[in-house]
Amino acid sequence: MTEHHELKQTEVKYGADRPKAANPVKIEDLTLRDGHQSLFATRGRTEDMIPVAEMIDDIGFWAVEVWGGATFDTMHRFLNEDPWERLRTLKRYIKKTPFSMLLRGQNLVGYRNYPDDVARAFVDRTAENGMDIFRTFDALNDFRNFETVVEVIKKCGKHFQGCVCYSMTEPRMGGEVYDIDYYLNKARELEEMGADTICVKDMAGLLSPYDAFELIKALKENVKAPIHLHSHFTSGMAPLTHLKAIEAGVDIIDTCMTPYAYRTSHPAIEPMVMSLLGTNRDTGFDIRALAAINEKLERDILPKYRYLLDDSKVSVIDINVLLHQTPGGMLSNLVNQLREMDALDRIDEVYKMLPKVRKDLGQVPLVTPTSQIVGIQTVNNVLFDDENESYKMITSQVKDLCYGLYGKTPAGVNPEVQKKALKGYPRGEQPIECRPAEILEPELEAAKEAVRDITTDIDDVLIYALYPVTGKKFLKYKYGLETPPDSLKPRTLEEAKKEEDLIRKVRTGELKDVLEKAEKKGQAPEGDNVRKFNVFVDGEEFEVAVEDTGMPFVTAAPQPAAAAPAGPRRAGGQAAPAARPAPSSQKSEAAGQKAEAPDKKAAPSVEGHPIKAPMPGTVIRYEKKEGDSVAEGDTVVILEAMKMENSLTTPVAGTVKAIGFSEGDSVAKNDVLCVIA
Amino acid sequence: MTEHHELKQTEVKYGADRPKAANPVKIEDLTLRDGHQSLFATRGRTEDMIPVAEMIDDIGFWAVEVWGGATFDTMHRFLNEDPWERLRTLKRYIKKTPFSMLLRGQNLVGYRNYPDDVARAFVDRTAENGMDIFRTFDALNDFRNFETVVEVIKKCGKHFQGCVCYSMTEPRMGGEVYDIDYYLNKARELEEMGADTICVKDMAGLLSPYDAFELIKALKENVKAPIHLHSHFTSGMAPLTHLKAIEAGVDIIDTCMTPYAYRTSHPAIEPMVMSLLGTNRDTGFDIRALAAINEKLERDILPKYRYLLDDSKVSVIDINVLLHQTPGGMLSNLVNQLREMDALDRIDEVYKMLPKVRKDLGQVPLVTPTSQIVGIQTVNNVLFDDENESYKMITSQVKDLCYGLYGKTPAGVNPEVQKKALKGYPRGEQPIECRPAEILEPELEAAKEAVRDITTDIDDVLIYALYPVTGKKFLKYKYGLETPPDSLKPRTLEEAKKEEDLIRKVRTGELKDVLEKAEKKGQAPEGDNVRKFNVFVDGEEFEVAVEDTGMPFVTAAPQPAAAAPAGPRRAGGQAAPAARPAPSSQKSEAAGQKAEAPDKKAAPSVEGHPIKAPMPGTVIRYEKKEGDSVAEGDTVVILEAMKMENSLTTPVAGTVKAIGFSEGDSVAKNDVLCVIA
Repeated sequence: MTEHHELKQTEVKYGADRPKAANPVKIEDLTLRDGHQSLFATRGRTEDMIPVAEMIDDIGFWAVEVWGGATFDTMHRFLNEDPWERLRTLKRYIKKTPFSMLLRGQNLVGYRNYPDDVARAFVDRTAENGMDIFRTFDALNDFRNFETVVEVIKKCGKHFQGCVCYSMTEPRMGGEVYDIDYYLNKARELEEMGADTICVKDMAGLLSPYDAFELIKALKENVKAPIHLHSHFTSGMAPLTHLKAIEAGVDIIDTCMTPYAYRTSHPAIEPMVMSLLGTNRDTGFDIRALAAINEKLERDILPKYRYLLDDSKVSVIDINVLLHQTPGGMLSNLVNQLREMDALDRIDEVYKMLPKVRKDLGQVPLVTPTSQIVGIQTVNNVLFDDENESYKMITSQVKDLCYGLYGKTPAGVNPEVQKKALKGYPRGEQPIECRPAEILEPELEAAKEAVRDITTDIDDVLIYALYPVTGKKFLKYKYGLETPPDSLKPRTLEEAKKEEDLIRKVRTGELKDVLEKAEKKGQAPEGDNVRKFNVFVDGEEFEVAVEDTGMPFVTAAPQPAAAAPAGPRRAGGQAAPAARPAPSSQKSEAAGQKAEAPDKKAAPSVEGHPIKAPMPGTVIRYEKKEGDSVAEGDTVVILEAMKMENSLTTPVAGTVKAIGFSEGDSVAKNDVLCVIA
Repeated sequence: MTEHHELKQTEVKYGADRPKAANPVKIEDLTLRDGHQSLFATRGRTEDMIPVAEMIDDIGFWAVEVWGGATFDTMHRFLNEDPWERLRTLKRYIKKTPFSMLLRGQNLVGYRNYPDDVARAFVDRTAENGMDIFRTFDALNDFRNFETVVEVIKKCGKHFQGCVCYSMTEPRMGGEVYDIDYYLNKARELEEMGADTICVKDMAGLLSPYDAFELIKALKENVKAPIHLHSHFTSGMAPLTHLKAIEAGVDIIDTCMTPYAYRTSHPAIEPMVMSLLGTNRDTGFDIRALAAINEKLERDILPKYRYLLDDSKVSVIDINVLLHQTPGGMLSNLVNQLREMDALDRIDEVYKMLPKVRKDLGQVPLVTPTSQIVGIQTVNNVLFDDENESYKMITSQVKDLCYGLYGKTPAGVNPEVQKKALKGYPRGEQPIECRPAEILEPELEAAKEAVRDITTDIDDVLIYALYPVTGKKFLKYKYGLETPPDSLKPRTLEEAKKEEDLIRKVRTGELKDVLEKAEKKGQAPEGDNVRKFNVFVDGEEFEVAVEDTGMPFVTAAPQPAAAAPAGPRRAGGQAAPAARPAPSSQKSEAAGQKAEAPDKKAAPSVEGHPIKAPMPGTVIRYEKKEGDSVAEGDTVVILEAMKMENSLTTPVAGTVKAIGFSEGDSVAKNDVLCVIA
């Protein structure tokens, strides 16, 4: 047996004053980053972190994750908050505990590889603004994508945590690619790069407890750097996986405070603290202090955010991730995507096709952005392939992947698929072998130029460099050049409570009459013989329609309007519902960005071939302008959807006759983006 | 190290066709009893169990828990379902898997000790109706309360599973009472009684993983009967506790299907099946078959019940149970109770007083009904004691406990408290030493007599014997002598979906206008389009405001009505809101019974001293009738509240002048139950 409980101490107390354990497990708290990213669409605002910041600082965490991942994107895009300012603000409250961030390697905090000049500036500024630990990962585990950022991390004297993304192709660890040697080799690579700590990043919650035991034990035996485990709760295994990892000697684990834990987030800290109480791996944390933070979060903060919680199911876990070895967010994206294409009945075919496509694409780990790349291509294959031809519609991301633009895939790409993907690929038909960023042109100077009229601050420039469309919008808000819309304003506790109160009333039936009436509203007859009144009887409102069966109403005073009703009358008399787009119940994997009402220009109504949006998204840019002539297959517009840039090409040659939207506009499915004739 | 993963098999598949493990862990599924009892107020209907019954039967569970606990109470009381019929119905669908029930020892499926004749008949009929495994527990772990039922279980050739309630007084297992020897001795006692299996019943989720390892290992070494572990998820430790128990050799664990798992329920089965896949304790279950059941439950069943889910918090666990070593339901009852007394600010005093009262009362395990007994007495002490006197107001249940009516407490009762409690106690001031049921008079014949006009069926008689008030009501419905109210009818999927749709609309803001208007109700508009009338209908005055939605009113003729308003006008014109009592968001620990609108007789308005309901509850019976003379301190009415019977005594001598309610009536706090003058 393991030694865990033989070292049980005689004095077991709740407080932090109990005897120190021989080898306490260290904890990184993810509440302020991955917690709200996983459960509340990354919508946590700085003002809602401040009330618990000092309390969290007092616990004794190894680190607090406060930044990175989707926060940079979400803050400037949806919260009208300066991401850099959060770092500086939190640093004023959290003085003892190191800050940690999630850095997507050469992708930084975006969704594509940035050139080295941008990467260097970003890491340098992040360190300068207060970051201590750079948790760095690459979706392909191609650590050449770490080279540039690690150089700067080290130069700034900061902590480089190297991640290995945990992935699998079988029900348990093993198989042709992701066996234990794969992970040991990757860890050794990281150690050689100078990793201060090594993190097993189990972003999908696939690592099972006994595999974790074996893996962590082997890592501890083969690698000197401390080992950190990051395992999402999604499948429900993570707490068990933590426990076995702790028994195997893991140094650090990731948890969230209870209200930000469970579901697709992380295990909660408190049960683990209590489970280890009095053992040789006791955290030493004060359980009452943790309870006090929870209470504050539940009472003062969560009411504002709980509407973002996915309540489409009662289940707390998603067992399907285990059946398909995929992240939960990827599965819901697939479902979403099929629903948008009216093809939800083909989900089982998609599940079946998925491992095949993944194998063709080199058995990539499934994590942002590879999960979307594999997922969307799988859907394309199911929907568009026929018996004569497979991979009929290859996305531009798959082409990039086949070219080597994301890096080296863990297994080889299917040569036939690769050849087809690269046919006519603008960068060349021969894939590259080098570090992807080596072929990227510098972008920083152009970025400076692009926002020179607004700002010359380097942090501002980086916001633009990473997110040109939404970043520029944000900078205009920041410098008062544009007024941010109300939708970016924070939700108050009062508004939230009012909404919850209404929901409570729906549940108790108190609103039944009102709502039934609302439903029937407007079903009164129409016609010249009808007059409608809102009648209030003892304070109760009735909509009364009076139809004179004899003749039209005659009103005493002259009424030019009523005498000559202008414009067509609605057919039914049924009022059109005040249509507001219902936010999708599915959140996108990372930022969970919600569809906004399209800020539409008049859709081009000229004659010709319309290029329609194949799915809801944001216009990144038009590659052509009105009057340009285009050849068949030319890209005319880039649409961002589900965080992937989609090049929309014209199937006909001609001239761009009309353009329907502007850069940054949100569009709905089938909106006409432009017309070719 | 443990041997778990060294026995990992080479062939790991999802299906049930994978190689059998050396020592598969057995699973009891609790979805159909403790699952919905824990999460959905025990409101699961038989019709909603049938669609998954055969699927569950095919999994290979060791047993399925389908009955007992609060189901008997809830079914006849809130669902208008015959509890016996559920057993017979499910038996037609679940043919392979043994049935299990939770039997509360001599309390059967009620909340007090029943006499032996009722106990014998109940067990006999339960066996006859299809029960296989009788999971039997006693709140004090006084197994003399098992004697009668075990005799019948054995005589019927059924499986006797003996429970030891897991309880603690320290942060970890140990201390003066609940150390490992306590549990070993209790297990040996059960084995001597002929237990076929022995269950550690961790109803509050307090058993920590490494304590579980130690406990289960010791039990396996000292006891021959298979060991079963039942651990609620409440504190979040249960999955870890399961895992360590499995490593220690536990034979059987309890789980729920995912949608009925987590929160205050049990760990989900699926993550455990996946965690053990390919180990020597692999369940062998088909994970895809489990996923199919989940999907059906989520899609077809849960939408009807999710409104019952406690959504007052975002947190999935309740960490407070670990800080106070109490069941979660008990804590929320305490909060509820204090709120009803307008004393919620004294919760910290209650938490502090709790261990003291528990110690005075012999360190009883905290489980129905002892959790309520200790909880209510604690609140009484905090609210009513002063520096001169403690235990100023002792509940009748505490008196019974001190008398020995529940059995022998694990530690001795504080002699001073005992003496004070038994002063003037009607059964005698000297506590008993015998098995409690020995002093109870038989009740079965009287029960037969009481329902003879309705039925002579023994199963019916037992419903009455266990629940005289609500049981009789149910029997009247069953035999068509009374019409059950609509509130007992099942909720349809359509109704549920409509409600969810409304809630979705509240969240998206689609109902904002309607609801804002509803809020302003009665604030009749002002303006030229509005005319107000006082309208007299059959002598009753209404204030009527008429708003012409077309244009301003033009008045041509004199308006006598408006000129001379008659009668007193209401001050505001604001209508009183149509007050419907909002159901308490807190569920009671077991049955989760919701407050219903009181079916009130005219409250007595005669002169005299009113006896008011100190809390909402149900009138069990009046001990006195109108005209009876009473002495100071006489019990006049028995009120059931929070599943405890409260004897309400008169503080004045006199005559019962008026009685406000009937047996079975629900009453609100401060309702006048009767008047003494």
